[in-house]
Amino acid sequence: MAANKALPLNVRVLLEGEEEVGGEGIAKFVASKPPELKADFALVSDTELFAPGLPTLCVGLRGMIYTELEVRGAKTDLHSGMYGGAAPNPFVSLAQILAKLKDEEGHILIPGFYDGIIPPSPEELAAWQSLPFDEEHYRITEVGSRQLVGEAGYSVLERTWARPTLDVHGIPGGFIGAGAKTVIPAKAVAKVSMRLVPGMVPAKAFALYKSYVEKIAPAGVDIDVRMIHSGDPCLIPVDNPYIQAATHALKEVWGKETVFIRSGGSIPIVGDFDRHLGVPSVMMGFGLPDDNIHAPNEKFHLKNFELGIDSIVRFLEEAGR
Amino acid sequence: MAANKALPLNVRVLLEGEEEVGGEGIAKFVASKPPELKADFALVSDTELFAPGLPTLCVGLRGMIYTELEVRGAKTDLHSGMYGGAAPNPFVSLAQILAKLKDEEGHILIPGFYDGIIPPSPEELAAWQSLPFDEEHYRITEVGSRQLVGEAGYSVLERTWARPTLDVHGIPGGFIGAGAKTVIPAKAVAKVSMRLVPGMVPAKAFALYKSYVEKIAPAGVDIDVRMIHSGDPCLIPVDNPYIQAATHALKEVWGKETVFIRSGGSIPIVGDFDRHLGVPSVMMGFGLPDDNIHAPNEKFHLKNFELGIDSIVRFLEEAGR
Repeated sequence: MAANKALPLNVRVLLEGEEEVGGEGIAKFVASKPPELKADFALVSDTELFAPGLPTLCVGLRGMIYTELEVRGAKTDLHSGMYGGAAPNPFVSLAQILAKLKDEEGHILIPGFYDGIIPPSPEELAAWQSLPFDEEHYRITEVGSRQLVGEAGYSVLERTWARPTLDVHGIPGGFIGAGAKTVIPAKAVAKVSMRLVPGMVPAKAFALYKSYVEKIAPAGVDIDVRMIHSGDPCLIPVDNPYIQAATHALKEVWGKETVFIRSGGSIPIVGDFDRHLGVPSVMMGFGLPDDNIHAPNEKFHLKNFELGIDSIVRFLEEAGR
Repeated sequence: MAANKALPLNVRVLLEGEEEVGGEGIAKFVASKPPELKADFALVSDTELFAPGLPTLCVGLRGMIYTELEVRGAKTDLHSGMYGGAAPNPFVSLAQILAKLKDEEGHILIPGFYDGIIPPSPEELAAWQSLPFDEEHYRITEVGSRQLVGEAGYSVLERTWARPTLDVHGIPGGFIGAGAKTVIPAKAVAKVSMRLVPGMVPAKAFALYKSYVEKIAPAGVDIDVRMIHSGDPCLIPVDNPYIQAATHALKEVWGKETVFIRSGGSIPIVGDFDRHLGVPSVMMGFGLPDDNIHAPNEKFHLKNFELGIDSIVRFLEEAGR
C-alpha cells in the first residue's frame, strides 16, 4: 500500500512465533479450519535464495519427526570404580543403539524406513544439475568439515532435499563439566530427529523407529522413545498460477530467471495449509546460504531485505490481476 | 592419644583434597620423595566393609585412565534441515566410535587391551567365593537395574575387582535443553574412562585406545583423544606385618575374622606410595556398600565412624609393638 496506495487483493497476515519449539498452537488453529484463514494462496517467507542475486522459489520441503530416546540403567548414579563391570551404562547402551540407526555410509538402518519414498522426477533432477552449485566451495565455505558425508549414489542436493536423514542433536544426562567425574549415570537421553521426504508419513516413520529401537536395545537397560513434534513433507506443483505470478515478479525485480529448488528444512504450516485448508503456499524467502541459520552469528543480508520488499510488492500486483 | 595418653609410634598425617579431580598435586609431591613422607607403612581409610559388621581390609585396587574423546565436524553448528545428509554429525560419529570400543557382551574391543593381565590366584578366587554375596540382592538394592551386565564367564566380584572396564560418563556439547532444537552440533566430547587391573600400565592402555580410535574414526570428522588423569592398579601382599596387625586389631573390635577383598575403584596415591617411596598401604576404611558413593544422597554410617576410631586405636597399638 505504501508503494501503490492500494492493494489489488485482500491480505491477511498470520504471525507465528512458536515454530522453532514445535508450533503445536498454530497447527491446531489451522486444523480447526477457522473462516479467517480462507484464502486463495499463502505467501510464506521462510526460505532462501539458492545463491546471492539468484531469484528462487522453494517448491518442496522435507518433513520431520523430532524424538527423545531415553535409556535408563541403575536406579541412581553409581561410582564407576565400584560398579563398573556390573552396572549397565546408559551412555554406552545409547551409543550402541545409535550406531545401529545409521551406518557409516549414511544409510538409515531402520527396517522399512525408506519404503514409499517418491523420488524427484527426471526433469527436476536435471534442473538441479544446472544450478550454480560447487560442491567443494559448499564444503569449505558453508560446512567447513574435512569432507562431506551422506548416502553414496546421490548428489549433495538430492541428499539434502530429497532423501531422509537421521541426526543426533545432543545427549543430555551424565557429567558434562570440566575435568573428570567417575560416575555411571542412571540415565541418558538422545535428541534424535529424522527428516522425511515426499511419500513418507511422520506417524509411520516414528512407529518403525520406535519398534526397531525397542528390538535392538541392549540387555540391562530400559528404553523410552518419545515423539516431541513432527511435520509432513510437501511438494508444490510449479504450474500453480500463484507460483507463476511469483516467477514473473521475481524476474522483474532481480533481472534473472527464477530457479525452483527444494529445501531440506521443514515448515510444518505449509503442509497444514495444504492438508486442512487446500491453500497452496508460495515459498518466496530471501535468506542466503551463508546466513548461519539456527547457529551462532545468524544474519540477514540488508540488500535482500530491500529487494524482498520490492519482490513482494510486484508479486501481489501480479497475483491480484 | 586421647584413648591411651601416648602413641606407641610416630604418626604423620597427610591430607589430600584433590583426588576426585585428578590429584596431580599430591602425585607430584609423592614422586619428589620428600623426607617428610618417610614411613614404615601408610594407613589409608578410603575403602569399605564388604558387608555391615564384617571387618574388611582392601588389598587390591584397579587403576584407571580418564580421557576425553572429542569429535569435530563442521566449522560451526548447522541447521539439520539445510545440512542434514551432507554435514558430518559428531554425535552420530561418536556413537559409532563408542559402539566399537565395547560390545554388548561387555568385551572391550581395543586390540591388545587385555594383554598382560595378571589374574587373581586360585586361593584369592576361592576366598571371594566364600564371601557373603548375594548377586540378586546386590542387583536390586545396590544397582537397581533390570539386570547386571559385563563379561560372560566372570563373577560379579571378578568383573568389578579383577577385570578392566570401559565406561562413558557424559557427552557434553550439542543441545541439552527441554524440547527440540534442530542443530547439527559442530563438536561432541565423550568423557570415557577405563579401569585397569594388575599387569596393565596406564600409558600403554591409553596408547592402544588412542591409536584404535584414530583408526576407526568415521569419514568427515576430526578426532582428538586426551588423557585427563591416570592411576596404576595395585595389589598389597597379605603377609605384610602391618596387614597382619590390622587383621588382629579389627578382629578384636568387630569380633569377627577379617576378610580380604579388592576394590574396583582407584586410589592413585596407594600406587604412588608403593612405587616412589616403597611404603606399603593398609587400606582400612569403614564405608558400607549402600553409601551411594559419588552419587546423590551419599552417606556415612555413624556406628562405623565410632568402631572405625576404635579399630584405628587398636591398630596403632598393634603396629607399634
